[in-house]
Amino acid sequence: MRTKPKILERRLVAQSRLFRVEEIDLEFSNGSRRTYERVPGGADSVLIVPMLDPDTVLLIREYGAGSERYELGLPKGVVERGEDPLSAANREIQEEIGYGARDLQIIHRLSIVPGYIQHHSLILLARDLYPSCLPGDEPEQIEVVPWRLDEIDALLARDDFDEARSIAALFLAMRVLEHEAL
Amino acid sequence: MRTKPKILERRLVAQSRLFRVEEIDLEFSNGSRRTYERVPGGADSVLIVPMLDPDTVLLIREYGAGSERYELGLPKGVVERGEDPLSAANREIQEEIGYGARDLQIIHRLSIVPGYIQHHSLILLARDLYPSCLPGDEPEQIEVVPWRLDEIDALLARDDFDEARSIAALFLAMRVLEHEAL
Repeated sequence: MRTKPKILERRLVAQSRLFRVEEIDLEFSNGSRRTYERVPGGADSVLIVPMLDPDTVLLIREYGAGSERYELGLPKGVVERGEDPLSAANREIQEEIGYGARDLQIIHRLSIVPGYIQHHSLILLARDLYPSCLPGDEPEQIEVVPWRLDEIDALLARDDFDEARSIAALFLAMRVLEHEAL
Repeated sequence: MRTKPKILERRLVAQSRLFRVEEIDLEFSNGSRRTYERVPGGADSVLIVPMLDPDTVLLIREYGAGSERYELGLPKGVVERGEDPLSAANREIQEEIGYGARDLQIIHRLSIVPGYIQHHSLILLARDLYPSCLPGDEPEQIEVVPWRLDEIDALLARDDFDEARSIAALFLAMRVLEHEAL
């Protein structure tokens, strides 16, 4: 394994309410130097694969301010300060899809763009759901879209189901379910 | 399908060399208003799944300035102005893994965080490789790591192979290969 580059200096170069951008000067073990921009980390997020039954996942459709369109994806949210990831996941699904889960399992941890952004999403498989609603901060009712796992080809063919994290999480969850079924 | 929210106003709230952050005021079709921050789009990127042979993908190990550690992942890069995605992909693999590809196929388009970031990555399956190097702007030689697809469980279990895009792309490519083999 290579020796990590030395971080020679960090400078805050831009800041908004949600985002901070740092410039870091790096010296690699071969002596070459680079200055990179990066978004340093905040809280982790959770992304939940909620199974209504062994064959059906619950997706949500909501507006993406980044993409400027309605997107199909998995429920998700930020782990609040003092909250553990399992509680955060159970809160988010009660806010977004109207179910809690008696069985929540962390199955993976994903980064988004490790070259530029310091952030991790924990992927949770949620099973044994029970109806339960919590008020969220959503601007409108989120549409819940049940999808059968044996129709995943049709889902992947859709233009509005394209988030890397949701696709990775769904494949990872299906893998856990398949391994359990063996 | 719901009516998209109206964008009432956009304001640039932070800017660095690489990143711009906008604030947008939205009015949803039910009348509720929200102000969100977002990173507006730049160029698309390409992420390549290069197959050395039908069973072996070529991964790279490089330092992630966001995560501050060495990461295993797929070769990738930005589509330059005036460049088409296939040429960009073939340039990136020659820069990063020392191969070009005679057979390049766009198999998917992924977003990263559609709630906040307007960016798309095209996923390409690269086959029929030939040795060819192009000089890149990398600070150090990138380590190329061949990985057999039948050992993907061991890859997914690694802490340093965690980028959502790379994991999604690998599953999507394996799906294309499996469908072809049927």
